[in-house]
Amino acid sequence: MSCFSLKINDRYYTTTGWDICEKTFTPEHLISRGSNFLTGNGYLGYRGTFPDWRRDQYVGCFVSGTYDNADGKWTELSNAPNALYTNLEVNGKSLPLSTNPPAPFKHKYYSRLNLQNGLLEMQNYCKTEEGAALEIRAERFASYDDLHIIPMRFQVKALSALELTVSTGIDGNVWDLNGIHIPDLQLQAHLNFISAKGRTVQSGLTLVVYEGHSISGVEPQQAETVSQGQTALRKYTFSLKPGDEIMIDKLMTVCSSFDGNNPEATAFKSLEQALDKGYECLLEEHQPHWNKIWKNIDIKITGDLFSQALLRFNLYHAIICAPLHSDSLPIGARGLSCQAYQGAAFWDQEIYNLPMLTWTMPDAARRILTYRYKTLGGALRKAKALGYSGAFYAWVSGMTGDELCPSFFFEDVLTGRKIRNHFNDWQIHISPDIVYAIWQYYQVTGDWSFIEEYGAEIIFEVARFLHSHAFYKKDRDRFELIRLLGPDEYHENVDNNAYTNYLAKFSLRTALVIEEKLKKEMPSSHEQLSEKLKLTETDFANWREMAAKIYLPQPDPSTGLIEQFDGYFTLEDTTPADLQKRLLDKNEYWGWPNGVAVHTQVTKQADVLQLFVLNNCFSLNTLEANYRYYEPRCQHGSSLSASVHAIIAARTGRIEEAFNYFKHSCLVDLSATAKAESGGTFIGGIHTAACGAAWQIVMLGFLGMEYNKGRLTFKPNLPEAWQEVTFKLCIGGRQKAFKATRTGVEELNQ
Amino acid sequence: MSCFSLKINDRYYTTTGWDICEKTFTPEHLISRGSNFLTGNGYLGYRGTFPDWRRDQYVGCFVSGTYDNADGKWTELSNAPNALYTNLEVNGKSLPLSTNPPAPFKHKYYSRLNLQNGLLEMQNYCKTEEGAALEIRAERFASYDDLHIIPMRFQVKALSALELTVSTGIDGNVWDLNGIHIPDLQLQAHLNFISAKGRTVQSGLTLVVYEGHSISGVEPQQAETVSQGQTALRKYTFSLKPGDEIMIDKLMTVCSSFDGNNPEATAFKSLEQALDKGYECLLEEHQPHWNKIWKNIDIKITGDLFSQALLRFNLYHAIICAPLHSDSLPIGARGLSCQAYQGAAFWDQEIYNLPMLTWTMPDAARRILTYRYKTLGGALRKAKALGYSGAFYAWVSGMTGDELCPSFFFEDVLTGRKIRNHFNDWQIHISPDIVYAIWQYYQVTGDWSFIEEYGAEIIFEVARFLHSHAFYKKDRDRFELIRLLGPDEYHENVDNNAYTNYLAKFSLRTALVIEEKLKKEMPSSHEQLSEKLKLTETDFANWREMAAKIYLPQPDPSTGLIEQFDGYFTLEDTTPADLQKRLLDKNEYWGWPNGVAVHTQVTKQADVLQLFVLNNCFSLNTLEANYRYYEPRCQHGSSLSASVHAIIAARTGRIEEAFNYFKHSCLVDLSATAKAESGGTFIGGIHTAACGAAWQIVMLGFLGMEYNKGRLTFKPNLPEAWQEVTFKLCIGGRQKAFKATRTGVEELNQ
Repeated sequence: MSCFSLKINDRYYTTTGWDICEKTFTPEHLISRGSNFLTGNGYLGYRGTFPDWRRDQYVGCFVSGTYDNADGKWTELSNAPNALYTNLEVNGKSLPLSTNPPAPFKHKYYSRLNLQNGLLEMQNYCKTEEGAALEIRAERFASYDDLHIIPMRFQVKALSALELTVSTGIDGNVWDLNGIHIPDLQLQAHLNFISAKGRTVQSGLTLVVYEGHSISGVEPQQAETVSQGQTALRKYTFSLKPGDEIMIDKLMTVCSSFDGNNPEATAFKSLEQALDKGYECLLEEHQPHWNKIWKNIDIKITGDLFSQALLRFNLYHAIICAPLHSDSLPIGARGLSCQAYQGAAFWDQEIYNLPMLTWTMPDAARRILTYRYKTLGGALRKAKALGYSGAFYAWVSGMTGDELCPSFFFEDVLTGRKIRNHFNDWQIHISPDIVYAIWQYYQVTGDWSFIEEYGAEIIFEVARFLHSHAFYKKDRDRFELIRLLGPDEYHENVDNNAYTNYLAKFSLRTALVIEEKLKKEMPSSHEQLSEKLKLTETDFANWREMAAKIYLPQPDPSTGLIEQFDGYFTLEDTTPADLQKRLLDKNEYWGWPNGVAVHTQVTKQADVLQLFVLNNCFSLNTLEANYRYYEPRCQHGSSLSASVHAIIAARTGRIEEAFNYFKHSCLVDLSATAKAESGGTFIGGIHTAACGAAWQIVMLGFLGMEYNKGRLTFKPNLPEAWQEVTFKLCIGGRQKAFKATRTGVEELNQ
Repeated sequence: MSCFSLKINDRYYTTTGWDICEKTFTPEHLISRGSNFLTGNGYLGYRGTFPDWRRDQYVGCFVSGTYDNADGKWTELSNAPNALYTNLEVNGKSLPLSTNPPAPFKHKYYSRLNLQNGLLEMQNYCKTEEGAALEIRAERFASYDDLHIIPMRFQVKALSALELTVSTGIDGNVWDLNGIHIPDLQLQAHLNFISAKGRTVQSGLTLVVYEGHSISGVEPQQAETVSQGQTALRKYTFSLKPGDEIMIDKLMTVCSSFDGNNPEATAFKSLEQALDKGYECLLEEHQPHWNKIWKNIDIKITGDLFSQALLRFNLYHAIICAPLHSDSLPIGARGLSCQAYQGAAFWDQEIYNLPMLTWTMPDAARRILTYRYKTLGGALRKAKALGYSGAFYAWVSGMTGDELCPSFFFEDVLTGRKIRNHFNDWQIHISPDIVYAIWQYYQVTGDWSFIEEYGAEIIFEVARFLHSHAFYKKDRDRFELIRLLGPDEYHENVDNNAYTNYLAKFSLRTALVIEEKLKKEMPSSHEQLSEKLKLTETDFANWREMAAKIYLPQPDPSTGLIEQFDGYFTLEDTTPADLQKRLLDKNEYWGWPNGVAVHTQVTKQADVLQLFVLNNCFSLNTLEANYRYYEPRCQHGSSLSASVHAIIAARTGRIEEAFNYFKHSCLVDLSATAKAESGGTFIGGIHTAACGAAWQIVMLGFLGMEYNKGRLTFKPNLPEAWQEVTFKLCIGGRQKAFKATRTGVEELNQ
């Protein structure tokens, strides 16, 4: 490894801007380390754990599509048994791999995540109490060439004479958040491989894992198979001289019946082929996939290696969380890094993850948006169940699009009672958010076929929903949206949330634009769709009327302020720091129904400012006034908040402040600044929305990118150290390269 | 006193059906005893305390109109210094008057409230440790002839030789709920009287109390004036032989600057005149006023002395709480029995207190309704402040009609945090309730002048308010009322509460009926009023449209059930007993935002059933079905609840059940079954609404009275023991007498 190192924070450093490294293992960071060092490929995510770690160290390999409800309450992704499990005994005593080396050898320890290809390396120097010493190295990656495999290379070098026992195989003792999803795991040791198989509790999916490995370097003196409890292992004994090296190339393959009818065959075929090819070949076949991804998404920053590493770390995670292989799967709010947030999509997907994909990998964006089409049925069912028409998308959307968000989930830590939060029935902006993402996708790509095939139907059903949700106030001759929960989740039950109302109007107008275009240019499509959705002229007239008369809170003429919702300015005006002092328990939920923030102007996250990111019809003065007002009142209780503040700060010329928010946002996982628990619920794991937002901070914030009716403009406001920024965008199906400097942005010849 | 006694409960008995007596003093019932034995006259209320009691025994004389906010938070009535204060020392030792007599003399103790004239008598036999014995008697009443005076007669008879010291005068150590209202009390002993004077903290009212007395029987050996702290007393020393008797006739006069510019002169004049007249004469002048009241309101029950006494006890309190002397004062929810509920009117006034007055003492009803006209300004201000038009009456209405209900009052006893209840902004039915009472008053009295002078304006402004509050749902072509708090206060934030929506429609239709009549018959009044209120044809057309299209939850065709509000039937179906078990603290508030009842179908009080009491357009089958459903789900957490259940039970022929609810309702104060504290707030005192409701239970329930378009009908369903019920009603200005038996009701010749 390179000698150069630039400190990122107390835990991490980078050597090239293409890696994240750790010099010491800190046991108190178990959870965030496993997430940060996640290897994944959008199909599965394997946590950055040591090979000998188990349930208590949060070992997990989460497999997309394996939704299951094991505890009767929470639907979440299932966790595959761990087929990379490997432990060591030296001279008859267990040797934990994650122990930091003794004083003179401290520099020998490192873990390194190579962002260029998602390879996680770990190296360690271990010394037993009796003085036996050895060096250990492991590396692994989740293949993008065959999504079902995780190859691992495990190496031991004896530095003194010693008796070594290596046990390697499958361990079923993995971390589960809400119930064990494969209670009857069938482990079986075959001649050349080990298999684990079982069915998920409620969804009844078959999950299959195979393990195979080869050993080279030194011949084992003894080999036996040990099956015990939830493990099936091969146990090898070696008698090593100083300098002896052993190499174990190990393979884990995973498949579920979500992927097809015969998951065993698929997983077994992957195993056979991969074992045939060998570790180096697998790595070689994997690398070009990442090359292609980085060619699309990379943003190269000259002059600031720190920012460069932070940014790439976030882009890396923004990619491995995305199911690029499927058009039936969502991007989970914690990706595949853990089971929190149910492996499900939230509005994060459209507002935080998709912009980067839309602008750099539009095919991937199309697939994610197609997922929303395939789950339209769930949105229709949800609307109907709540007494509305059209499509009310789930706040927490898994396989079917039916609402996964329970009515009661946070716990009042002071009383132990469950809290009825209304994320599932009042946070209606999720539907317009999807319209926004679809329309942006179409604007950037020009892919009308998506609109015709999928988008129009979604958008019409959302318009229908919004009309059925809205109330008309006769005395004010306007439509209002009542009883909402806006982006700022501390304030439930609010009326005319500016963000929601503006997005609703945008959705209705988009529906009408599509309707007009269809009618004029594709009358048969128009007719077909109208018939399918039972839409009449009355519906379109209704949307037109509502679009014209929906109430939009305007900037106050004297102050420039937009009120977040009706009556927000009458709430107690205080600060997050003051509220902090009112807490009776640090894990208290600040929001509804009686948390410390509810009756104050303190917000959980950007709300009016969030609107500015999406809608650029507001003047810079308005941005300025509202940033000044809302910023000090924001607690940043959500990882979605810092990025929005960074963008608006950058757009209003507050570069230092913007850069601080950029760091805050990009470090949310590396510094583990976000809380891992709220109101008694585990919410740790990779904040995939913040990862996607990193791209937006640079593009919409520091580069001031705007795209209006096919016209791309930039107003760069670069952080002091940044000399040059180069990046690519894919517009209208054509990739273009750009170079930004302090003075402007130019397109490059490719 | 009569030897005959009929037990009412463990504490009280009656001898004639015209009194409530106590045989033992029970210190644990301090609060309720003082309320039950209250003497009052609608101008003031003096608690049923012993003459030597002080602050700790909840001594209070609450004076109507003396609203003051002493603690910066709660506006409530002020408490006059106690000019009836009298204590005894026997042979140099203090002798508490409320000590129960020793064993052989137990029968000598009694307290008796004479309901015929509001005279409270107390008698006791006291024996000191050294064996000195004496008999004590005291009686007092709040005069209806001069509302400013409370005469008291205090008698001592020595049963052994003893040295007696009597200290009598004014004691400022009185009970205050929320702050001391007269912090700088000026006490002064003059030659023949004592005065106390001071100003209330925030309202700056002058409150004056005078004390005068005369002594007869035995000459005191010594007399001196002792002023100390908050007291100014005359101290008399007597040397008594067995059989010696002393009689002190004492007088308290009270006046505040709310009553006029010179409260001192008024109070002094009352003192002088009353001292001149003497105790017997004052009682003689007082009695005819009560005779007249009882002639109007009494309901005579033959066959059941228990019910008779209960009923009269309630009617007594229903009268003394009512400010019959004024048209600018409300009936307080606790009358003048304490400071709880701020001496203010709630919907109780219109729905519980007024029916009895409207039917029996219409002039009194007119005055109370005029108070609502005089406070219309407050209702207009409240509506405006909340963004509505018209009149949104205060949930808690004092002097000006401005909202006195604080946004935060209950405390979460589990966390010590204040709860934001929405009684003040979501419980809109108060405005239609007032329309209901006005229209009933007009229907019964035919007094159109009230409508023309006051009622029309109130009702038009309420209609205007309702229209501005309502939302029109275009997709359902109907008006809805959103975010309500209905009579059942455990469920806040509900939509289309059946009670509220029906009453709203009633209000709109009433407004239109009045408008039509004015237009046709009194066009100049119509024009004047329209001009004054800036009403145009558009307003009337709006009300007409809303009256036609407001959504009214209908009885389900198969079950007959009316849903209390949208979605009520989807809430957890459980019982009050089950919820009781979920409490973490017995003083927990069950309601909003996270009490045990919030997410269940358990109600605090009648809601749909309450609607049936006001609106008789529903079939008996509907009453039957809804009673069966809602009754077991009701916790009766409000004293307003039992009476409604009694009425509907009686109307549906459940006589035994109805009688149990009748007892429950009529005993609420005598048995002190209602909690004196809820969510940390004191809510004790006389439940004046339940008192007024006693009349309704008999008339609307057991007698099945209905009045439709001038036609009075009865369907008697009498409790088993009741042989005959005689009563009077005042219809169209003419008093009529009726006699009800099991078989029917006949009008009597008078």
